[in-house]
Amino acid sequence: MSKGITSRNEDYSQWYNDLVIKADLAEYSAVRGSMVIKPYGYAIWERMQADLDARFKETGHSNAYFPLFIPKSFFSKEASHVEGFAKECAVVTHYRLTNDEDGNIVVDENAKLEEELVVRPTSETIIWNTYKGWIESYRDLPIKVNQWANVVRWEMRTRLFLRTAEFLWQEGHTAHATKEEAVEETKLILDIYADFTENILGVPVVKGLKTESEKFAGALDTYCIEALMQDGKALQAGTSHFLGQNFAKAFDVKFTTREGKQEYVWASSWGVSTRLMGALIMAHSDDAGLVLPPKLAPIQVVIVPIYRSEEEKSQVDEYVNALTESFKKKNIRFKYDDRDTHRPGFKFAEWEMKGVPLRLTVGARDLKNGTVELARRDRQTKESISQEGLTEHVENLLDTIQENIYTKARDFRDAHITEVNSYQEFKEVLENKTGFISCHWDGTEETELKIKEETKATIRCIPLDAEKEEGNCVYSGRPSTQRVLFARAY
Amino acid sequence: MSKGITSRNEDYSQWYNDLVIKADLAEYSAVRGSMVIKPYGYAIWERMQADLDARFKETGHSNAYFPLFIPKSFFSKEASHVEGFAKECAVVTHYRLTNDEDGNIVVDENAKLEEELVVRPTSETIIWNTYKGWIESYRDLPIKVNQWANVVRWEMRTRLFLRTAEFLWQEGHTAHATKEEAVEETKLILDIYADFTENILGVPVVKGLKTESEKFAGALDTYCIEALMQDGKALQAGTSHFLGQNFAKAFDVKFTTREGKQEYVWASSWGVSTRLMGALIMAHSDDAGLVLPPKLAPIQVVIVPIYRSEEEKSQVDEYVNALTESFKKKNIRFKYDDRDTHRPGFKFAEWEMKGVPLRLTVGARDLKNGTVELARRDRQTKESISQEGLTEHVENLLDTIQENIYTKARDFRDAHITEVNSYQEFKEVLENKTGFISCHWDGTEETELKIKEETKATIRCIPLDAEKEEGNCVYSGRPSTQRVLFARAY
Repeated sequence: MSKGITSRNEDYSQWYNDLVIKADLAEYSAVRGSMVIKPYGYAIWERMQADLDARFKETGHSNAYFPLFIPKSFFSKEASHVEGFAKECAVVTHYRLTNDEDGNIVVDENAKLEEELVVRPTSETIIWNTYKGWIESYRDLPIKVNQWANVVRWEMRTRLFLRTAEFLWQEGHTAHATKEEAVEETKLILDIYADFTENILGVPVVKGLKTESEKFAGALDTYCIEALMQDGKALQAGTSHFLGQNFAKAFDVKFTTREGKQEYVWASSWGVSTRLMGALIMAHSDDAGLVLPPKLAPIQVVIVPIYRSEEEKSQVDEYVNALTESFKKKNIRFKYDDRDTHRPGFKFAEWEMKGVPLRLTVGARDLKNGTVELARRDRQTKESISQEGLTEHVENLLDTIQENIYTKARDFRDAHITEVNSYQEFKEVLENKTGFISCHWDGTEETELKIKEETKATIRCIPLDAEKEEGNCVYSGRPSTQRVLFARAY
Repeated sequence: MSKGITSRNEDYSQWYNDLVIKADLAEYSAVRGSMVIKPYGYAIWERMQADLDARFKETGHSNAYFPLFIPKSFFSKEASHVEGFAKECAVVTHYRLTNDEDGNIVVDENAKLEEELVVRPTSETIIWNTYKGWIESYRDLPIKVNQWANVVRWEMRTRLFLRTAEFLWQEGHTAHATKEEAVEETKLILDIYADFTENILGVPVVKGLKTESEKFAGALDTYCIEALMQDGKALQAGTSHFLGQNFAKAFDVKFTTREGKQEYVWASSWGVSTRLMGALIMAHSDDAGLVLPPKLAPIQVVIVPIYRSEEEKSQVDEYVNALTESFKKKNIRFKYDDRDTHRPGFKFAEWEMKGVPLRLTVGARDLKNGTVELARRDRQTKESISQEGLTEHVENLLDTIQENIYTKARDFRDAHITEVNSYQEFKEVLENKTGFISCHWDGTEETELKIKEETKATIRCIPLDAEKEEGNCVYSGRPSTQRVLFARAY
């Protein structure tokens, strides 16, 4: 932990990579584009999982598990779906290795699969093929199922957490008797994602609708939450898709209505992934390392003892034991770092890098004075405060930090939504100020693609709360009825 | 739920399959040998996961995540390991699909991988390749990491939960500075597995050591827990491997000792899988369906209202609401099944099939009498009891049921460990009485394989608590110093 990391100003991209490595979150593996999520990084992901999972269950969803492999023929049944994913699929073609004449391990050509299997990039096809057997009548609906799983998309350029060949996610797949219910579900999940991302991760988001060219392959509508990173680039943090009857038709899933008619089932699907780790890191962290919001932090308070003798150590131990008993009662997640293999300065740097919200230092002098030293990670400030009422103080401070982290990110985001009314202005803001650009667009894919080609900016979403406003497309000058958000994005 | 299932006596194997399907636990998918774990089955697996995960964390383990794909060359580095797994590996050879001239979706031959990737059947090789980067000195040890993951072994004959091409499991991989510490870890985990299986699943196990021919490919010693199913066949429910320095040597993982020497790292690995679902089902269930031990059951008490009018229904509702408030305080997991789409008899059969430990029925007459009807799933008995002190009664009854289920399985198992002293007796017991056969064996692989060929019985384990006893091998007559356990097994 002795060396620091590249600063954001110097090289934002390198800063991100350094941080992920130095904070022990993840690393590249020997398998091209695949990462290893290290214990500390995984502990943060586990906390995301637990919170989301509870929200899904509270709203009537159950978990299940569907196969990793998808027969190629299933994959091809929904035309736009296969078009969207075919170019990035890992394909299993054989089921055995063997020794060649020289004793090398090779693929056994006698064990070729009749039909190749695609490693799931997403599970709509295998799940809708399964739902066909589960659904006969309206009594079997709705089905509200989620799975926590790994998926594979063969990305050419990868970045830890943001874009990896294999990643972890949850994917919900619901089946409904009516269009209204499926749309309602799609929006319910979008709200859950937004609330979770803002209140737990402390990352403000814009809820919106994707354009035709940006939506999920196989969806009628893709809703999304879009976040803004500190370098002014946007990041799609979660998506919820209204699939209409596309997959029900592709897999012939009909149900008998209350009136005895046969109708195709309506569907939604939705997911967030380990990409959220990237959003978390890039929204809050600084040149000293990770900054974690307390509600998410696996360790909220790290306690470091300062001592010069065994006697002093045991006095500190005694105090810390009493204090942490009181922490436990308040469900404050703490770690007493009394390793004797490392010096305090090393520990300070390590926990700062790992983003622990509060560091509490106790030494012999503190014990004499009835104080402790408390350091806030979010502001990098420290103060000596009384031991009296310390637990309550810590509890309140954790809430304050959570709020501060969110407010800071929101102020930054709000300051980086810029209304522009000309293409010249658009390009200037994109180059210099960065962030979201709110402007009129003529609604055509042609314009969208031209802007993308010329500036690398894409329409992040059509915000759900956008007001109707007459205007003219910044690119074509054609009439438009509302503003959309453009940005360069991860 | 109207139809029952095949009885155990009629066809045990069909009974098992029927039960898995009818109790909504799992089903075969369209992908050869892969299963779909349905929400109710997955809820049971989630409870297993939560309990085990807490035990791992209490004993100092952290979760992490390693890649699904393993380069073929890694896989080949530990000789016995690759020999053990090569014949059942799914292999990824391409990373793209494309359209052929006729518009069909085919594998893109231009997207062939330089080195094929094996879908992990277990992760020792990729993990030890990673640990190489994590370990420099004794300060970096021990590493105690677990992952919850899916693995693939291309089995030719599959059975739901027991043997599927893809299954879910946890795999722990630890690294230690000394042999003693690695062995201690291996045994600690064995004890955790045994305690969990006996106290939560209610399935008694024998702890033992595998013979050379049955041990894990790459291990020095494989410890196991062996359970007995109601048909007298054994089932390996979990394994914990002492890997010695095999993988450290294969991946060149050395560390600097306190004394400044370079030594290879010592290792353990250990796992339990969705196979435990099979053990659970076959240890306790009956011809009416699943029987769940209360500590594991996602629903411990199902409450079914009986009513003839809306007025009666609302009276029952009122009572049930008060009762379930009291259940919540005691953390009793309940479901109020007041669906108006199904009749009580249907509900009774459904929850019986799904193994819910207690069914509580409340009707208008009960309200008048101050009673409820309570039915026990494990004994298929019911009684009318007073509403007074009902919550405490239910709480105690759940403990009683947990104990009863375990005791019943243990008595059955104990009655099916038969000491034999001749090969004739061995074969008779195997054919007629079934179960574990405790006998002397000469310690040679030759004898072990001959017995296996002739009888299909294998050495399940050399029990850890076996007493030293002079004797003669039932097959060869050669001298032996302790008895081992043979059985036919899943």
